[in-house]
Amino acid sequence: MNKFTPSPLGAARLRDRVLAPRITACREVTIPSSLRRCDETGRLAAFRLEWKPGMPNPPHRFWDSDVAKVLEGMAYMLRLAPDPAMEAELERLIALVISAQQPDGYLNTRYTVVEPELRWVNLGINHELYCAGHLIEAAVAHFEVTGRRNFLDAMCRYADYIATVFGRGPGQKRGYPGHEELELALCRLARVTGNPKYSDLAAYFVNERGRSPNYFAEIEHSVPAEKLYQEQAHLPVRDQHEAVGHSVRAVYLYCGMADVAAATGDAGLMKACEELFDDIVSSKMYITGGIGSLRENERFGVSYQLPNDSAYAESCAAIGLALFARRMHNLTGDGKYMDVLERSLYNGILSGLGLTGDVYFYQNMLEVNECSPYDRTRVPWFSCSCCPTNFCRFLPQLGTLAWSVREGELRLNLPAAADYDDGRCRFEVRGGYPYDGRIAITCRCTGSFAFSLRIPGWCRRFTLRFNGRRLRAAAERGYVTLERDWQPGDRIELELAMPVEVVRAAAPVRADAGRVALTRGPLVYAVESADNPGGFHQLLVDARSGFTLGSVKGLPAGTVAIRGRGRREILNSDALYTTNRPKFRSCRFTAVPYALWQNRGEGEMAVWLREWF
Amino acid sequence: MNKFTPSPLGAARLRDRVLAPRITACREVTIPSSLRRCDETGRLAAFRLEWKPGMPNPPHRFWDSDVAKVLEGMAYMLRLAPDPAMEAELERLIALVISAQQPDGYLNTRYTVVEPELRWVNLGINHELYCAGHLIEAAVAHFEVTGRRNFLDAMCRYADYIATVFGRGPGQKRGYPGHEELELALCRLARVTGNPKYSDLAAYFVNERGRSPNYFAEIEHSVPAEKLYQEQAHLPVRDQHEAVGHSVRAVYLYCGMADVAAATGDAGLMKACEELFDDIVSSKMYITGGIGSLRENERFGVSYQLPNDSAYAESCAAIGLALFARRMHNLTGDGKYMDVLERSLYNGILSGLGLTGDVYFYQNMLEVNECSPYDRTRVPWFSCSCCPTNFCRFLPQLGTLAWSVREGELRLNLPAAADYDDGRCRFEVRGGYPYDGRIAITCRCTGSFAFSLRIPGWCRRFTLRFNGRRLRAAAERGYVTLERDWQPGDRIELELAMPVEVVRAAAPVRADAGRVALTRGPLVYAVESADNPGGFHQLLVDARSGFTLGSVKGLPAGTVAIRGRGRREILNSDALYTTNRPKFRSCRFTAVPYALWQNRGEGEMAVWLREWF
Repeated sequence: MNKFTPSPLGAARLRDRVLAPRITACREVTIPSSLRRCDETGRLAAFRLEWKPGMPNPPHRFWDSDVAKVLEGMAYMLRLAPDPAMEAELERLIALVISAQQPDGYLNTRYTVVEPELRWVNLGINHELYCAGHLIEAAVAHFEVTGRRNFLDAMCRYADYIATVFGRGPGQKRGYPGHEELELALCRLARVTGNPKYSDLAAYFVNERGRSPNYFAEIEHSVPAEKLYQEQAHLPVRDQHEAVGHSVRAVYLYCGMADVAAATGDAGLMKACEELFDDIVSSKMYITGGIGSLRENERFGVSYQLPNDSAYAESCAAIGLALFARRMHNLTGDGKYMDVLERSLYNGILSGLGLTGDVYFYQNMLEVNECSPYDRTRVPWFSCSCCPTNFCRFLPQLGTLAWSVREGELRLNLPAAADYDDGRCRFEVRGGYPYDGRIAITCRCTGSFAFSLRIPGWCRRFTLRFNGRRLRAAAERGYVTLERDWQPGDRIELELAMPVEVVRAAAPVRADAGRVALTRGPLVYAVESADNPGGFHQLLVDARSGFTLGSVKGLPAGTVAIRGRGRREILNSDALYTTNRPKFRSCRFTAVPYALWQNRGEGEMAVWLREWF
Repeated sequence: MNKFTPSPLGAARLRDRVLAPRITACREVTIPSSLRRCDETGRLAAFRLEWKPGMPNPPHRFWDSDVAKVLEGMAYMLRLAPDPAMEAELERLIALVISAQQPDGYLNTRYTVVEPELRWVNLGINHELYCAGHLIEAAVAHFEVTGRRNFLDAMCRYADYIATVFGRGPGQKRGYPGHEELELALCRLARVTGNPKYSDLAAYFVNERGRSPNYFAEIEHSVPAEKLYQEQAHLPVRDQHEAVGHSVRAVYLYCGMADVAAATGDAGLMKACEELFDDIVSSKMYITGGIGSLRENERFGVSYQLPNDSAYAESCAAIGLALFARRMHNLTGDGKYMDVLERSLYNGILSGLGLTGDVYFYQNMLEVNECSPYDRTRVPWFSCSCCPTNFCRFLPQLGTLAWSVREGELRLNLPAAADYDDGRCRFEVRGGYPYDGRIAITCRCTGSFAFSLRIPGWCRRFTLRFNGRRLRAAAERGYVTLERDWQPGDRIELELAMPVEVVRAAAPVRADAGRVALTRGPLVYAVESADNPGGFHQLLVDARSGFTLGSVKGLPAGTVAIRGRGRREILNSDALYTTNRPKFRSCRFTAVPYALWQNRGEGEMAVWLREWF
């Protein structure tokens, strides 16, 4: 049922200035440092199952998932850059993980050694099935990259065991994951093994969710009825029209729903996915593509509740939204999903990771100052360290997001400079995207197929040339398609108009009233005290006086800054409250890509600025 | 050492349209309903000491204080309005309270029946000494009003016992209250009994606080060192120059410090009080006189951290600030303290109580809408119900705040309409204050003394007439003084200019950037959806087009509304983010006194509004 599939891992080799260095840093820094942290914190040793009651540092309920995500990332990375040492390490760790599997197929460190009596007891609040999902994803990745079946077979045994425990048969538990993830993992397992029993199990988990009597509230008693929305278990999924609750759980569920829809052709599920996606994008997504605005339970706010200074916008939630958007694109072929994926990727996802590759934001605020409620600097690890390990596995997949394929068609979603070679099609993409809208694409293969280029939703004017000749083409659902017999040397020149845009949030968004954000192409910009005097609440942007582009010190070569003019508000008062009137002094300011803020020391930052009329 | 004392309870009979009805509602509704809640929730029965392990609803650590505050309020109210039924009820309840006293003098329901082994064990987090303070205040009030000694004697025995437990002597605990209150209560007890041992004990508590080794962190281990600021125990009090931590605890401590300074003439303590007061008023107080801006630990934010939508600004904290301001006025005679008292009283305190007298805000937000984090409506009670019971005892004291005395001088601090008679001086005050700045004062006595009138800090122009003749008088430290031989019929006419003022917050206050508040006289105004279409983030105030005054439906007769003009921002967009530009449509709006908002049903409210330039 999927119209498109991601391009094969490794087909696209990114060569741009933004994404490619992140992948390199992921290989050189993010994965090794995450592995080291997993080791130091006991996450690796946990799989030896040597913990005994009374010992310190018992395996935590989400530890297994952290290790799994690093293993998944290592596998992908081996495809991008063969590395015998990393491969040997991966195999060693996989052997360690498999060694923890129980005779019945169960594999969870905590509930094997710490609380064996609680196996499958509190699905609503525990993370067993979530951890299982990440282990399965890791095993699928390992098999896809290496062709080795040891991890995959072990995880099939685990999934087979889970299928005996959960279901609608006699004696089975009618439960489902409290933290979703297993659903999508089972669909991946079904695809790679060709065995539909795994997608059937995923479909069971998706379809059983939220039914009456409610498993969490009325059978297991782990979650009170009024909190079920937090786990998206308050209604059957087809009756959920609004994205609510824990945002990471939500988008992981929606990924699973989309995968089940793809596997089964379930139109009702597909419609639910579309509605939930539209709900997020129309009322619950930051301009950065971050979601889950509230710290309380890491959840979605009500519609338009998008505070900037206390924005939670967890890195994992933005990654999850991109994964959901990818699935919706694959299901529908609609470019609007890639618009969201691109927005999240270049802004709310990459902001979560420092350029060095080893420091992270868990919360991605849109305004940071002395009143900020969260960490104002990226830190190397978290006790709940889902975000670092999510980068380990997400970044190596960027090439598969940038290009999609289907029979007879190759799609360029993100025109970042790259060499593409999937064995049949070969193309070179050159240019400075996302800082430059001029993209040159050269064919290096022969064949008759369609080549589609995404015309981003943010782009209001573009020109397209084929072998020097201007083509009049209109984008259809976000793409222009060139269907022809390709010859080596055929050359496409796409120019996406990329002016600085002055963006406003829709009327109901209280936090952004009277404020504007600056964007250019897919990038959201922010002012940072590294480039400007602080006190950004006193800086007003003059949108009419135009903007210039420039470079900026201390950020990677090629980074494009926006320079603008505005006013500084000056209010002289000795008292806290005054009837004095403010004055406004002309000023200039520099804005840098939001994702790159706080790579030059601590300071203040703001995305939304007051507007000078 | 005090320059002034509050006027005697009952000397001032308020007859105005704002305060007097609140006192009436307190007598008729607030006190009876609080008593009923204390009964229904088990707070009264707790004093029977019949709770046994295994029974439900064990007495809570702060329950005793709730009952004490209602008793204190009942005593005051009996002086304002003799009521044999209420008096009998008060005596019955006092007998019940006293019956719970232990042979050694100890009196605390929880630590007598629930956790007797924890008596005095966790001062840092428990509320034993806090409850003792409120019981003592109630006993002092009861004695002052009725002359009966039973409660007072019992509380002296309790204080005597406490003095054996705590102190610097051998075998004594070097502890002090985790939640301050006892310090000020002991000073009251010393004044009413004439026994300095109680103020000495208060001085010990004040002076021992925060010394090294730290009692909470290093001896009792109840509070980690980095959290000591929360209880103002991070430094000796003289080294505390900034108001930090739990705001109610803070101002209760500062009251105790001021009382000890008054009792002992300790200039260092006095200076610390002045610095702490100035720190609050210059950087940590809402325009409403609310303090403690953060929900987290109910604490002060950093300087200028004054969020509107998540303003915590607990009702009790505003009351505590008024009590601190009264003490600072009494110590110094400076009207600037009365400015703060008046600001808190007419705004951030009265907002905490519905006009019906039986519904309360715990948090007093300055902006309420669909994103608000707290209760958007006043509710009848809280599990931690300090605020309702604080109103029970605060409101009957309003007359004693409005007038102060010292030998040879009578001071009118709040020129609300009133009849004043302290046995020597008799005056009538008439006028519509705080809605009208014209105040007529008629002498009804004979005598040679000074009569001082406060010229509020908010007032920029006033005229004063004595027996029809204009006087040229300048205010000195906030007061003009008429010293003469008073004759019955002598008439003072004071006119305080009371235009609508457009107020801005000082430059560092981020939450109020680009926003204005409207005030008139001591009143802060707010727009409320009862009078205006909602979406106040899209309403811009045009300060140049002037304001008119008017009445408003559904609020008490005489309430003055402000009507103004401005613009409504209109931004048409189907998308959450847009490059569309807003339009602005002329509009009118009505603002009502902040303290009266949400007395006409649920809705949106805002104090700080965007300004139209």
